[in-house]
Amino acid sequence: MNRLNNTFATHPATQPLYLSAPDAVTLVRRLGLKNCITGIVVHIRADFLRWLDFDKSARVANHSQDGVIELMPISDDTAYSFKYVNGHPKNTAIGLSTVMAFGVLADVATGAPTLVSELTLTTAMRTAATSALAAQTLARPNSRVMALIGNGAQSEFQAIAFQHLLGIDTLRLFDIDPQATAKLVANLSSSGLKLQVCASTAEAVKGADIVTTVTADKACATIVSADMLAPGMHINAVGGDCPGKTELAAGVLAAAKVFVEFTPQTRVEGDIQQMPADFAVTELWEVLSGTRTGRDNDDQITVFDSVGFALEDFSALRFMHEAALAQGLGERLALIPHMADPKNLFGTLLQTTVKPALRQGSSAVCA
Amino acid sequence: MNRLNNTFATHPATQPLYLSAPDAVTLVRRLGLKNCITGIVVHIRADFLRWLDFDKSARVANHSQDGVIELMPISDDTAYSFKYVNGHPKNTAIGLSTVMAFGVLADVATGAPTLVSELTLTTAMRTAATSALAAQTLARPNSRVMALIGNGAQSEFQAIAFQHLLGIDTLRLFDIDPQATAKLVANLSSSGLKLQVCASTAEAVKGADIVTTVTADKACATIVSADMLAPGMHINAVGGDCPGKTELAAGVLAAAKVFVEFTPQTRVEGDIQQMPADFAVTELWEVLSGTRTGRDNDDQITVFDSVGFALEDFSALRFMHEAALAQGLGERLALIPHMADPKNLFGTLLQTTVKPALRQGSSAVCA
Repeated sequence: MNRLNNTFATHPATQPLYLSAPDAVTLVRRLGLKNCITGIVVHIRADFLRWLDFDKSARVANHSQDGVIELMPISDDTAYSFKYVNGHPKNTAIGLSTVMAFGVLADVATGAPTLVSELTLTTAMRTAATSALAAQTLARPNSRVMALIGNGAQSEFQAIAFQHLLGIDTLRLFDIDPQATAKLVANLSSSGLKLQVCASTAEAVKGADIVTTVTADKACATIVSADMLAPGMHINAVGGDCPGKTELAAGVLAAAKVFVEFTPQTRVEGDIQQMPADFAVTELWEVLSGTRTGRDNDDQITVFDSVGFALEDFSALRFMHEAALAQGLGERLALIPHMADPKNLFGTLLQTTVKPALRQGSSAVCA
Repeated sequence: MNRLNNTFATHPATQPLYLSAPDAVTLVRRLGLKNCITGIVVHIRADFLRWLDFDKSARVANHSQDGVIELMPISDDTAYSFKYVNGHPKNTAIGLSTVMAFGVLADVATGAPTLVSELTLTTAMRTAATSALAAQTLARPNSRVMALIGNGAQSEFQAIAFQHLLGIDTLRLFDIDPQATAKLVANLSSSGLKLQVCASTAEAVKGADIVTTVTADKACATIVSADMLAPGMHINAVGGDCPGKTELAAGVLAAAKVFVEFTPQTRVEGDIQQMPADFAVTELWEVLSGTRTGRDNDDQITVFDSVGFALEDFSALRFMHEAALAQGLGERLALIPHMADPKNLFGTLLQTTVKPALRQGSSAVCA
């Protein structure tokens, strides 16, 4: 059942909790998706409010022909996290997800990992949580209708988050792949949301209070153009999130007040990569903390140019860690050797040959 | 025994091999430390010879009061790896290693992780392998006596690597902590190496062909000063490996021909951080490939200013992966959800409630 043994498992700091994908699904089923997203929003808000406590950096990306693999580290004085995440749009053709992720929490004081967790499901929740948090802050309070452009893996999470955290009651749906929309409709048939399938982005956007774009192609695309805009709209632009990948026409950005997570990263990865380097943006944490204003009036168009920032994964991992411990889910991994004398790493190789008696009960280390 | 289930484990790309610390110890005991280090040298040499194939970057470090946590990613056209590694010198006081590490291999074409492995033991082997490879290239061929300054966790691995790959037969030992030296002497008592315990660095260095420094304090220290040098020495400086942490006096570097792994990283982290930005260095891969010369004559002093580069971990992880598969070691982790329809992540949350019959045989996903 678990992969520890007497030689290696005696120091708790060497045994990170392992939360597998099945365990994460169990956790979300037990607590409910709505409650998990809400819990993650609480954590993200709290962490954004102490923004200056974090050692932040833009993510490190290795680009290849068909995709990208990224590492997203962040830390405060006590905790460290990173996420591993890929983006490979062609994966779905071979039965794999476009986005797969896992992450780690660690103790800053010692460097010891404390959690190794799936982050594919959790990323979907934290992205929806961040979008909802931004919209709570930036959209008109009476927003009820949301256009949802791109009906892939992330879309239902956005729908559930906006239903429960914003009061959205109607979704206007469009995807270039009608099967994706059909899947969303089937998945959300008992959600209580009114689902309106549209024939184009322009049709879906018409009459929407909020426009959420979660498309996945790795290309500069114009999903939303300026002529689709109506006064007071909030645009939650989630899919334009790496260099060469955008969703909004430059005219949309020019017509709007634009909000971002972490400016240095968004200038490279976000929709604003199309704009001059001095294009004015406001960071979300500044609005949350009251340092800067959000929406200035009901007619203003607001854009949340979301690319996904490491702090959101930090917050989500902490939520999942706490929830998994509370639910008794997960196992321990012997990822780090534990040594009787930590200066004696070489001794781990000698132990059983020098003192065979110690091998009793630790068959996994016998050669 | 393993953490897979019917719902999540049907696509091999979602099941990375997990090589725990006990499994890595088993592997090294089975194959022998000498053979593992030699195997890693073969991999590192082969990868250094195709240096230009790699997407390289300096590591990403989060520094804190007592230590540092780093991520070290690298990739070629087909494989990606990263290492997580900390450096916390005070850890040994609470029974933890100064350095703890784990790493991941992934498939560049899909972004799917293929291996999650311990890297604490493996880092010790790859560091020794890199040192030996550099010394094979740079030290005088008739080198027999090595001073080993710093007798901590890394020291025995250096000793074994230099014994078997360089022909070193005598070690001159010094550590500010006599217990560390006593531990090394005990560990290597049956190695066949002649072990000479010395009272100071200066005494240990006297008469040495090669000087290896593997000290761990996070501070600028002068372990080796210019007055200790003798013509023809090769200095293998391993411990000076992050900003503010050096081992060699500037005069040592000025008197020597200096070789590095990856210049942009070493300028920040290596002993040459003390020198001007245009201080001349040669990259090891250039010497291995014949592009530039190594040692120019028997009297020249050579310094390998080693900081540890991501490519070495890439090579070591590939060796360990191949060896673990060949030995049937390790288990599979359900780190990534597998979905019947990869665009339907949300569906993983509905599955058992919509179709309870599917729950049979997959108790881990039942809420």
